[in-house]
Amino acid sequence: MALTFYNSLTRNKDEFRPVVPGHVGIYMCGPTVYSEPHLGHARGPVVFDVLRRWLEHEGYRVRFVSNVTDVGHLSDVEEGEDKLAKRAQLERLEPMEVAEKYFWSYFDAMARLRVRRPDVVPRASGHIIEQIELTRALLDGGVAYVKDGNVYFDVSAYQPYGELSGRDPEELLEGTRVEVRSDKDDPRDFALWKKAEEGHIMRWPSPWGEGFPGWHLECSVMSTKYLGDEFDIHGGGLDLIFPHHECEIAQARAAGKPFARVWLHWNMITLEGEKMAKSKNHFVTLAQLFERYDPVAVRFHLLRSHYRSVSDFSDDSLTASAQGLRRLRETYRLVSEGAGETAEPGAFEAARAAFAEAMNDDLNTPQALAVLFDAARDINRALEAGASPAYRAAARALFDELLDGVLGVPPTADALGQSHDLLDGLVGMLLEERQRARARRDFATADAMRARLEELGIEVEDTAEGSRWKLG
Amino acid sequence: MALTFYNSLTRNKDEFRPVVPGHVGIYMCGPTVYSEPHLGHARGPVVFDVLRRWLEHEGYRVRFVSNVTDVGHLSDVEEGEDKLAKRAQLERLEPMEVAEKYFWSYFDAMARLRVRRPDVVPRASGHIIEQIELTRALLDGGVAYVKDGNVYFDVSAYQPYGELSGRDPEELLEGTRVEVRSDKDDPRDFALWKKAEEGHIMRWPSPWGEGFPGWHLECSVMSTKYLGDEFDIHGGGLDLIFPHHECEIAQARAAGKPFARVWLHWNMITLEGEKMAKSKNHFVTLAQLFERYDPVAVRFHLLRSHYRSVSDFSDDSLTASAQGLRRLRETYRLVSEGAGETAEPGAFEAARAAFAEAMNDDLNTPQALAVLFDAARDINRALEAGASPAYRAAARALFDELLDGVLGVPPTADALGQSHDLLDGLVGMLLEERQRARARRDFATADAMRARLEELGIEVEDTAEGSRWKLG
Repeated sequence: MALTFYNSLTRNKDEFRPVVPGHVGIYMCGPTVYSEPHLGHARGPVVFDVLRRWLEHEGYRVRFVSNVTDVGHLSDVEEGEDKLAKRAQLERLEPMEVAEKYFWSYFDAMARLRVRRPDVVPRASGHIIEQIELTRALLDGGVAYVKDGNVYFDVSAYQPYGELSGRDPEELLEGTRVEVRSDKDDPRDFALWKKAEEGHIMRWPSPWGEGFPGWHLECSVMSTKYLGDEFDIHGGGLDLIFPHHECEIAQARAAGKPFARVWLHWNMITLEGEKMAKSKNHFVTLAQLFERYDPVAVRFHLLRSHYRSVSDFSDDSLTASAQGLRRLRETYRLVSEGAGETAEPGAFEAARAAFAEAMNDDLNTPQALAVLFDAARDINRALEAGASPAYRAAARALFDELLDGVLGVPPTADALGQSHDLLDGLVGMLLEERQRARARRDFATADAMRARLEELGIEVEDTAEGSRWKLG
Repeated sequence: MALTFYNSLTRNKDEFRPVVPGHVGIYMCGPTVYSEPHLGHARGPVVFDVLRRWLEHEGYRVRFVSNVTDVGHLSDVEEGEDKLAKRAQLERLEPMEVAEKYFWSYFDAMARLRVRRPDVVPRASGHIIEQIELTRALLDGGVAYVKDGNVYFDVSAYQPYGELSGRDPEELLEGTRVEVRSDKDDPRDFALWKKAEEGHIMRWPSPWGEGFPGWHLECSVMSTKYLGDEFDIHGGGLDLIFPHHECEIAQARAAGKPFARVWLHWNMITLEGEKMAKSKNHFVTLAQLFERYDPVAVRFHLLRSHYRSVSDFSDDSLTASAQGLRRLRETYRLVSEGAGETAEPGAFEAARAAFAEAMNDDLNTPQALAVLFDAARDINRALEAGASPAYRAAARALFDELLDGVLGVPPTADALGQSHDLLDGLVGMLLEERQRARARRDFATADAMRARLEELGIEVEDTAEGSRWKLG
């Protein structure tokens, strides 16, 4: 099966054909770094990380660009103008300090989720000149107008407007937020450049006076700057289709840039079946979540839903995901014992083909995981029947390539991975002592040792060939 | 003793007085992110991290800004113009992709060295507008001139030039690099804005044509943007005094900004007694170093020299540092056992005072470490004599505050810290088994267990009160 994606722009599952053979350019709308990253921030990066890994697995060279919106709307006006003017700069709020703090929180959380860093992380504040240039080009092209230091995009002058969201003009009029003091010609028009009012801290000089770019502008500018005027894949959450992505397309195409070919949109995350809402405190930050769940289990849980379906987070579903992950890892641990140097040729070809088919079908990660669970079941059976070192090596390679490499889920637990040899040595010594106790029929001691090991989280299983252990 | 710093500008050890009481603004020249971070990159960030922590310990509110130079001189010209024009953007080198890669390498290495992130990490590419503005101001002020798309700072128009390096004009003329095709009026003049030649990839529009800022400009612009026109501390390596910092001062002061009050310069790192040189391959990347030494031991080693002295790295000196660190940590581990909830009041006041005196004396970290080693020796004696839970708690608090908090050296080893309870439980069980073997006079088994534990890196010490262990 050829690689296909559901393209929001064509509303169809299309076969993927890159603009430049062998290369793929991807742009993903990244976070606004003005608050702690929350669960809603996790899905897109994990999905796009897997997309990137799959494309690389299939031999493409990928350039992955994901922006950071640091041109925000922090204003110090509540402090009172007089006070503001009198205070030394070091005593005042520095918006970039806020942006910087949450920039690192976001990328630290992404690292814990095993999301690889983008190839380029352009910041809105770092591309003001380019945003001014595009605004100027749209003014020159007659699809924008200036009103008292603001520059607006003239939606009526760009006929295909609505092509992504499929909204008709009437609907669009209803969809516009009621703005109290708007000087727009048409409520559907949107800002390319905004005049900075007094008290607005982030501001830059421009041909239209001091101000800052409108939010939609940065993505049209930064995606094309690093990927070219026409590029392959653009993604974001479903809620970004309108107005953000609609406006991005309008800005780019009105300036003569063909822009993104394929638009991928991921669905939302719910918490205990309900939409997250900060206002109702029905909401969880990633830091809170990681206190209770291994970030890799969170990643694994996200991949258990297809990206276009809603993904629900609850204690039950996360616990189930963590258990599933543990099962795969346990198989990996068992198969690694006594694995040979060379893998059995031709082993797991069917599993590899089924995995590829799932991934090629619009990145069907739940199906791809099902393939790995089936493989694990087969492997466990083979282990019971006494698998050869070559078979074990092939099974281990399968997990290394697809679970670790493509899905980004490491097949060994991390914190303990580092000191695993030490643990292995210590537990091994204790099991020998216990074996000695049993040999001299001191079952009380043997049982007590087993109980104490279980308290420490180590489960012991006695088999015909001796005792095995695992971390429970 | 009041807080004093050796100020390169006054050539004197001056008492520190902040511009804004209670606040300290610090700017440190950060890396050019076009290659792997090497040992030379480690010293400044570690020293300034300790500076920041000490100022915070003393009650100051610090804003720490450290830039990233990503406007480099990568050019794709060697590919040939024709080829360049014909290739799709995705196939071409993207300088920002290179910068991004090494940006993360640098900050990953810094995190391993326990260097806290700066409050603001401005990028040169993100402040082009501001750099154009300062260039324009210097042109308006008559201290700069335009030559064919380049803008130069006119050194002769700024009389105090040389005030930081103390060089006289003759010396300065000798010091200038021979440039083959220079259109400068005076060889001492330096570029504020450079015309982008064909093949130069990173370029921005400016009033003087397409180009990019000169290297010195970004630091004058970004330090004052985030810290104010006059700020407290500016730092860099000794090799930056001339021309970089001299030019920074000239640019800022000629534009009417008082600029930094205190200039701190750290000395170089040598490798086996010799200056590092990439060209001679006498050179080590941080990644290479961290393969052989715990990054915390590297940090500890850096702090064993005063920042204005040369710090030498050799296997012997690093091993000695790692041993010293292990001694402090061992004391910490022993003292933590049986530490009470409340600390003995007034304990370690003299040590605290001596530590503060060392730090206030131009950040004398080797002296501050000597204070902690002395304290550890006293504590070890007290432990042998049977220290009280309150004494133990006070000793632990001392290390938490000064070793961990101020010097940024965690008093427990990390990788094992995570699974320490588990290790503790397992080793405890084994020592009990060994005790039982000894009780039944089975010394062969007891000795064999001890030998196997030692193979695993666990040293066992038999004492009157039972066996103790430590990771060797």
